[in-house]
Amino acid sequence: MGAMKSSRLEAFSDGVLAIIITIMVLELHQPHGETFSSLWDDAHLSLLTYLLSFVYVGIYWSNHHHLFQVVPHVDGAVLWANLHLLFWLSLYPFTTGWMDETALARTPTIVFGVNLIGAAIAYWLLVTTIRRLPTSGHFDEVFGADWKGRLSIVFYAVGIGLCFVEPWLGVLPYVAVALMWLIPDRRVERWLQERDQVPTVAP
Amino acid sequence: MGAMKSSRLEAFSDGVLAIIITIMVLELHQPHGETFSSLWDDAHLSLLTYLLSFVYVGIYWSNHHHLFQVVPHVDGAVLWANLHLLFWLSLYPFTTGWMDETALARTPTIVFGVNLIGAAIAYWLLVTTIRRLPTSGHFDEVFGADWKGRLSIVFYAVGIGLCFVEPWLGVLPYVAVALMWLIPDRRVERWLQERDQVPTVAP
Amino acid sequence: MGAMKSSRLEAFSDGVLAIIITIMVLELHQPHGETFSSLWDDAHLSLLTYLLSFVYVGIYWSNHHHLFQVVPHVDGAVLWANLHLLFWLSLYPFTTGWMDETALARTPTIVFGVNLIGAAIAYWLLVTTIRRLPTSGHFDEVFGADWKGRLSIVFYAVGIGLCFVEPWLGVLPYVAVALMWLIPDRRVERWLQERDQVPTVAP
Amino acid sequence: MGAMKSSRLEAFSDGVLAIIITIMVLELHQPHGETFSSLWDDAHLSLLTYLLSFVYVGIYWSNHHHLFQVVPHVDGAVLWANLHLLFWLSLYPFTTGWMDETALARTPTIVFGVNLIGAAIAYWLLVTTIRRLPTSGHFDEVFGADWKGRLSIVFYAVGIGLCFVEPWLGVLPYVAVALMWLIPDRRVERWLQERDQVPTVAP
Repeated sequence: MGAMKSSRLEAFSDGVLAIIITIMVLELHQPHGETFSSLWDDAHLSLLTYLLSFVYVGIYWSNHHHLFQVVPHVDGAVLWANLHLLFWLSLYPFTTGWMDETALARTPTIVFGVNLIGAAIAYWLLVTTIRRLPTSGHFDEVFGADWKGRLSIVFYAVGIGLCFVEPWLGVLPYVAVALMWLIPDRRVERWLQERDQVPTVAP
Repeated sequence: MGAMKSSRLEAFSDGVLAIIITIMVLELHQPHGETFSSLWDDAHLSLLTYLLSFVYVGIYWSNHHHLFQVVPHVDGAVLWANLHLLFWLSLYPFTTGWMDETALARTPTIVFGVNLIGAAIAYWLLVTTIRRLPTSGHFDEVFGADWKGRLSIVFYAVGIGLCFVEPWLGVLPYVAVALMWLIPDRRVERWLQERDQVPTVAP
Repeated sequence: MGAMKSSRLEAFSDGVLAIIITIMVLELHQPHGETFSSLWDDAHLSLLTYLLSFVYVGIYWSNHHHLFQVVPHVDGAVLWANLHLLFWLSLYPFTTGWMDETALARTPTIVFGVNLIGAAIAYWLLVTTIRRLPTSGHFDEVFGADWKGRLSIVFYAVGIGLCFVEPWLGVLPYVAVALMWLIPDRRVERWLQERDQVPTVAP
Repeated sequence: MGAMKSSRLEAFSDGVLAIIITIMVLELHQPHGETFSSLWDDAHLSLLTYLLSFVYVGIYWSNHHHLFQVVPHVDGAVLWANLHLLFWLSLYPFTTGWMDETALARTPTIVFGVNLIGAAIAYWLLVTTIRRLPTSGHFDEVFGADWKGRLSIVFYAVGIGLCFVEPWLGVLPYVAVALMWLIPDRRVERWLQERDQVPTVAP
């Protein structure tokens, strides 16, 4: 199997995700006063949305990490499916910032949801592109039907719908998706353990 | 063959490209209002030029990735040819931003084209520098005459010419080059597959 | 031993730490005049807090580097404990900036201390999460009781307390922790040397 | 030889240098007009100093790359000597920006020279720290007396002195150092070639 190794795709994605997750801190404007109440007034919403976006990007990094533990080789289509995912994730600082500046106004909260759903669909496309690689035979065995990925898309859609009723209601399903992904998924670790039952090169 | 390994050149380039592709999102100013029409008025051109620049940097990353799959070793000249390419690419946020702020005015659109043609020539120089390395024997076999690279330079030149007639006309050949590169190029993958016909170390 | 390798966690953390350590330079506003006195008036405090934060992030990077020399494999819990640490560290530019803008006012100096103590606790949690991995048998042997980590938390707490008396007094224990960590810790190097007594693959 | 591998130090330095080299583009303010003359008026000095700083950081990256081709292992002192170098380099965007804003006024040009000399001394300290490692036996053989490094420090000092006469005169030795380093240095490549005369694992 002489396809391209996935190592450089991982390195580049690590770079982009590291920047996205860190760059948002530049959007945290310093409070105008020097008291706790000015910190609360000027920054509590920013800090909360920063935390939420940090968790989202963290989840994608963690999933991406698990994904490529199982996928040693990639092709040109996977490179672009991955860039497509990074594009949606790179918009997080923009959409998070707008939602935050307008204190959860309706349209920005919907646009944030569209950004979330765009990233979720891009992730699903990446998984699909990987699945059809000849070298990823173990993939289905490890990841199965990926119901979490599908459920996320449904939740985001429900959130966008709820925003039309009341913006903060829409945020609830967004947060629920983050919590769902924080529950650890041991499938990849289990598979790696079974595969390497016999230690080859003891570290 | 005791030349320097290409791995660190790849890692550094990944870092620089990851920053260039992500930093442009900082130029996306949040809309002043909180409605869809304010998003459209304040940001639709920014989002489009962001997408275009993202695709350009993505293409360079993807080509760079393919290039160094075939080139295991580098020398000092390749290091500098690579830095020269990164310099031109690092100007994208600046030239994209100017074109965007002035809503595709003539001079900024020409300057953007000059930036594109500069990067294309730098890429061609990098390929030429690699080609004359003693260790890159398979290079010609894999990449051939690189007509896509040459054609890009011609298209960019045509685009710059058309800007003197009408700026948005000049953007058309710029976009055409991006589309041309998005068509997958399977030469590298094919070559890797033939080289490694017999699986050596099953991953 | 079939767990996930720690290499990508290291690469991602390197990326995030590299950005945090460098991004703070963007907060260094240029002096308004062009004389040495304007440099002193406008930037001496910024440069000092920049240096302090650079040293803190440098210490975390150095410790992180030592830590994962001993830990070849990770699991999902370690990934999240690591992201949690990076979250606290990513707030440094924000809290440093506020403390700096207000010229060491009481509340910002306390908030900076809370940020420091948050990162210290997150580091301790990361170490604890690693310690219970089945693959990290040598860990206790190398790192022992980690008294430096515990002492740091105590020092930061004392610093926060002193801020209530006088902010600049609180900064003293903060600086003391940095100095304590700058004293070299040769445990990891010694352990590596003993482990690899017999050179395996001469580099 | 069981010391710590240099790979992660390289990866972290690559990250920091990639950010420093790229972040300066954020300081390039877009011209206020949309004509070539406004580009010239508002940006020609910025573009020149950007190019100069890009070349400096590129030189350090290239030298750093060559250095660690010969140094497979590091210790805690090398980690900190390296961080010390990165600190000085991370100030380039700040000192370059000030010099640029004030159109090469005397003090900022001197401060830029101090920054350059600081980085050169830090590099010399790094080399000295590496030289005394037990594992770097080939070091002297490859790098010899490092006269380029010493000469740079002298040139920068001359430049700082000339700034007291006339700032733009001081910039000449600064540029001379950059040109001196651009002349390729084939010692490392030659040494690698001799070491690996017999190909071990054909790539």
